[in-house]
Order: sequence, then C-alpha cells, then structure tokens
Amino acid sequence: MNMKHRIQKLTSLVLMLSFSALAAAQNTDALPSWNEGKAKQSIVDFVATVTKPGTAGFVAPAERIATFDNDGTLWAEQPMYFQAFFVFDRIKTLAPQHPEWQTQEPFASVLKGDLKSALAGGERALLQMVMATHAGMTNEEFESLVKTWIETARHPISQRPYTEMVYQPMLELLSYLRANGFKTYIVSGGGIEFMRPWTEKVYGIPPEQVIGSSGKLKFEMRTNGPVLVKLPEVDFIDDKEGKPVAIAKHIGRRPIAAFGNSDGDLQMLQWTVAGSGPRLALYLHHTDAEREFAYDRKSSIGRLDQGLDQALAKGWTVVDMKQDWKTIYPATKK
Amino acid sequence: MNMKHRIQKLTSLVLMLSFSALAAAQNTDALPSWNEGKAKQSIVDFVATVTKPGTAGFVAPAERIATFDNDGTLWAEQPMYFQAFFVFDRIKTLAPQHPEWQTQEPFASVLKGDLKSALAGGERALLQMVMATHAGMTNEEFESLVKTWIETARHPISQRPYTEMVYQPMLELLSYLRANGFKTYIVSGGGIEFMRPWTEKVYGIPPEQVIGSSGKLKFEMRTNGPVLVKLPEVDFIDDKEGKPVAIAKHIGRRPIAAFGNSDGDLQMLQWTVAGSGPRLALYLHHTDAEREFAYDRKSSIGRLDQGLDQALAKGWTVVDMKQDWKTIYPATKK
Repeated sequence: MNMKHRIQKLTSLVLMLSFSALAAAQNTDALPSWNEGKAKQSIVDFVATVTKPGTAGFVAPAERIATFDNDGTLWAEQPMYFQAFFVFDRIKTLAPQHPEWQTQEPFASVLKGDLKSALAGGERALLQMVMATHAGMTNEEFESLVKTWIETARHPISQRPYTEMVYQPMLELLSYLRANGFKTYIVSGGGIEFMRPWTEKVYGIPPEQVIGSSGKLKFEMRTNGPVLVKLPEVDFIDDKEGKPVAIAKHIGRRPIAAFGNSDGDLQMLQWTVAGSGPRLALYLHHTDAEREFAYDRKSSIGRLDQGLDQALAKGWTVVDMKQDWKTIYPATKK
Repeated sequence: MNMKHRIQKLTSLVLMLSFSALAAAQNTDALPSWNEGKAKQSIVDFVATVTKPGTAGFVAPAERIATFDNDGTLWAEQPMYFQAFFVFDRIKTLAPQHPEWQTQEPFASVLKGDLKSALAGGERALLQMVMATHAGMTNEEFESLVKTWIETARHPISQRPYTEMVYQPMLELLSYLRANGFKTYIVSGGGIEFMRPWTEKVYGIPPEQVIGSSGKLKFEMRTNGPVLVKLPEVDFIDDKEGKPVAIAKHIGRRPIAAFGNSDGDLQMLQWTVAGSGPRLALYLHHTDAEREFAYDRKSSIGRLDQGLDQALAKGWTVVDMKQDWKTIYPATKK
C-alpha cells in the first residue's frame, strides 16, 4: 500500500471514528440526574439552538458565556451560608488572641455557640465578623487557611464535607455546557478568595472564572519580597445590581445563559435575557424538604420572591428540585 | 486488511504525522522579528524550561499566566497615550453640547488645538477630561464609540491607524507564548473599556483577559430593559501597586512571566518574580529614536527609571528595541 493510499485510508478511518464518537455523544444523556420534563428540555433545546452552525440562533463559542450563582445554586446554603461557618470557626481559632471577644458582640455569642444571636445583628454583624477574620494577613495565607478548612470542616446537619454538598445535576450541567463550547463562570455574593482555592477541583471552574465579593488588597514591599495584604475594608459586594456590574468588569461580555436561586440573582438574569439572540435564564426552586431544604419567599437566606414572580411572568426556566432532580448530592466519596 | 490492522496503521500514521508537525514547529523560528541575542535567548530558554514535562522547571499549562502592559509594551505611547487622543477627539465632538468648554480649562486648550496646555494640569486635568468624555452613557454605547474611533482615527505623526502601531515582535511573542500553552493577559493603566473592543482582533486577547483602569458602573432598569451606566467616578487605577492587586482580583493566580516598559510596571514584575519556580520579567527599553521613539529616565510618558535600575541589578531581561528588534511595526495593511 503506497503512501497516497495510506493517507486515504487514514482519512476515511478518522472520519468514521469521528462520526461514531459524535453519534455516541448524541445518544448519551449528558444530564442523567435530571428527570425528563420542561426544565431539562429547555436546557437541551437552548444548547442545541446556539451550537447549530448556519442557523439564526447560532452563537460563536467565544460568546457562549454562562454565569452561575454559587450559594444555593451550585452548593447548598442552609441553615446558613457555608462561608459563615468558616467565619465562626475562624473566630473560635482566633479567640485566644482576642480576649475582648468574650464580652463583645457578635463574637461573644459565637464563642458561646449561640449562632442565632450572633447573626441577630444582620448583615452588619456578619460583615464585622468577616472583616475580623478575613483581613490582616496576606492573600496567600488566607488561601492556605481556606484550603485546610474546606478539606476538614463538616456541615453541622449532614456531617458531610461542604464540597460534597454540591448539586450533582448542576455538576452535570456545568460539564454539559463546557462540552458544548461554553465558558462557565461563578458570579457569587460569596467571597472571591473564599471560593477560588477549591472551585477548580470541585466544579472544574478555574480561579480566573470565579467572581465574588471582595475586600481591599494592599501591595506591600517586605524584607523578603512583596506581598498582598488583605485589608478590613469592603472592596465590592457582588450581589443584586452588583452582579451585572461585576460581569461587565471581569468578563466584558454579556452572558447568554445565567443560573441562580434567589432574588440576589435577579439582576444578573435580567441583564442576561436583555441581550439579543437566544437566552437562557434559570432559577432553582428549593422545594425538597426531605432530600435538601424547602424555602423561597420568606427565607432570610436565599430568598426567592420577586425573582420567582418575574420567572413565572417571563417564562424563564424554573427547576422544581423535588420534581426535576433524581438526586441532589453526588454519591459520597470514599 | 482487517479492522485491527487498519487501526494499527492509523495509529502509526498519526504518530508519524504528529512527529513531523512537531519537528517542523521546532525548526521554525517563532520570533522572526527578534534578532539573535540575550533578550531573545532568555525568552526561548524560559519557554523551553517551563514546558518540559518531568523536569523541575515544568509548569502546568493552567499556571502559565503571562501579563503584558499595553501602552509602550504592546503598542506605542508617544507623543502621548493613545487614549488621550481619543479623549481630545471626544471633546471636540461634544463641544457643541458644552458651550462652557470654550472658556473652561483644560477643555478650552483642547478646542484651540493646544494639547500641551491642556495637559499642563497633569493627571488631574487628564482625569477631568476622561470623566467628561467617558461617562454619562451606557457601557455598550461607549463600546460602539471606541470601535468607530479605533477604525477611523490616525496617529498625528505616523498617520497610521493606532492599531498598526503595535509592535510586530510583541505580536510574535504573544502567539509564541499561547502556542506553548500560556494564557496571555493585558494589565494596563489604560481604560479597560477602551481596550476591550479591539484587543481580540489586534492581539488575540479576548475581553475577559484584559485588565485596566475603570470608572464605576451603575445598573439601571429602564423602560426597555436594564443598562449599565458609566458614572464619572474612578473605580480603580490599574498602575504601579494597583497592577498586582488587579491581577489577584481578576486572575487569582500569580503570573510566571510579566512584560512592561515603565516604572508603572515595576510592582507587577516584582510580584511576578517573587513566586517560586522559573520566572521571566522583561522590560522593553525604548532606544530607537529613528524607527520609533527613544525615552526612559526623564520621560513624562512611560518613564523607565527605578525599573531600569532594578532590572539591571536583578538580571531581568531588558530588550534594547534598537538592537534586538528587526522591525518595529507590522507591514502596513492594504
């Protein structure tokens, strides 16, 4: 067999193998934890629309930006945001260096184990605790604290590691979108530096695709080199109106798909659907008290009220977690 | 020939073709506009070191972050920052709506064509002009203004489009790094929204990999949908100490290679080399008065003074543009 023939054979074999792979991909359900129904269908239809070359709905891969809220959208957020548990653990660890915390609220309540009273001061109290525990060290020291915590801490109710309280159907959705040329981003009210140390491993989302709330950083030249010091000062709150602003700053493109679960995500979804061409706006509705948590209009954590009204009025996709998901969390790792 | 044989043939042919492609790639000079010498060699050696699997210097592709200043590093910046010319053009366009500018400095000088007097007020005057011309519209309206300007405006000395005053050797360097698994970022004191509309086309750098100075944005719900309005308020100045801070915020990883040309880039280079493992810090030294511009320690635009001292003391790569570059700008497009 001469070279010309070999190359012809090679070409036909490669084509044959490619077609088989394509057919296999199309026949496999990329979202096995999703029950058949309107929600799943709207996702699959949207992806089919934007990936079909030569049609009106086609979107170039570079513009396939999908943004995801984190708390309550990619992982659970009850009985309170997981980052708050990190804050409480930090307060307990730092207490010996802060004797004044024994009597000073909200710290005193945390040290007594009374988290409800600690949070009675609302966002102001939480922010005060975040500043006291997230600042006064370099960004790399903080990163290493988060890494240790996320590997060792356990959720107070489930006793699972927090990273195993991510939603299996959402992990499948992230992979499915990326397999279809999407770039997946987190756009969360949570701390940007609290998420980045583990999002790549857990979600396949690298640090540069994680957007969140942040404190100010200060460049400081020390004897053995430069460091970035975390200051006890808010830089940006990535929630509500802040989300589209942060998307504009970090990504510089409007998403074509956005995923959230609370009123804090409403502006991100509004901003996403206001662009031209096919759009997907999706809300998770926490309806499963048995397998997860059931909450919406009255919840202080992850309230979904105005957002639910808008979703119903505008025909956005609403995932009923009880009905639409076969499983909630991934199988426990050994 | 049965299937098993065919697949064996296929495998060996694919391997053969891959090796030929690899050999071809290795024999081709990826930096043809760079003269042989220390500067070029330090780049090629660095890339060889970090891309060789199984060696101490190997860096995983995800960590191959390279950051580039823009003004004076990727394109020219004399007789003043190109964005300033955009500002002057905007002032002339907007003048009919601002009769007060006829007598109010620095606007009056711009309208008389006396740019030197307009800039006599230093950074404060420039900032005042930026705010007056970059705010009060949506981010998408601004994007469209920049797109039109960059396609039509001409440099006052060369009469070339500004995007043809980019440095050919740096375009080759960007491509070379990307071909070796690097993610290339711009980290510039220039406006983030002024660069993003054209960096992908000109440098192959997508908007989400462009970091710069920014004004504040405000989410606003209007009758026909949400918009982001540009406010006349500074959000972030991405210069000097700001550069490592912006890198931490946007990328969340420390670069392993950084490229600049002025004291404004010094902290970015210091931050880059302070990480562990192989590092490349490179300064362009503008030494070519004939083909480009010659300036360093005394220049008001792009001053390179402290940075040059540090580069020489620490053995960073310094590119002598006159000696090290065969060409400065790309061949003029037809």
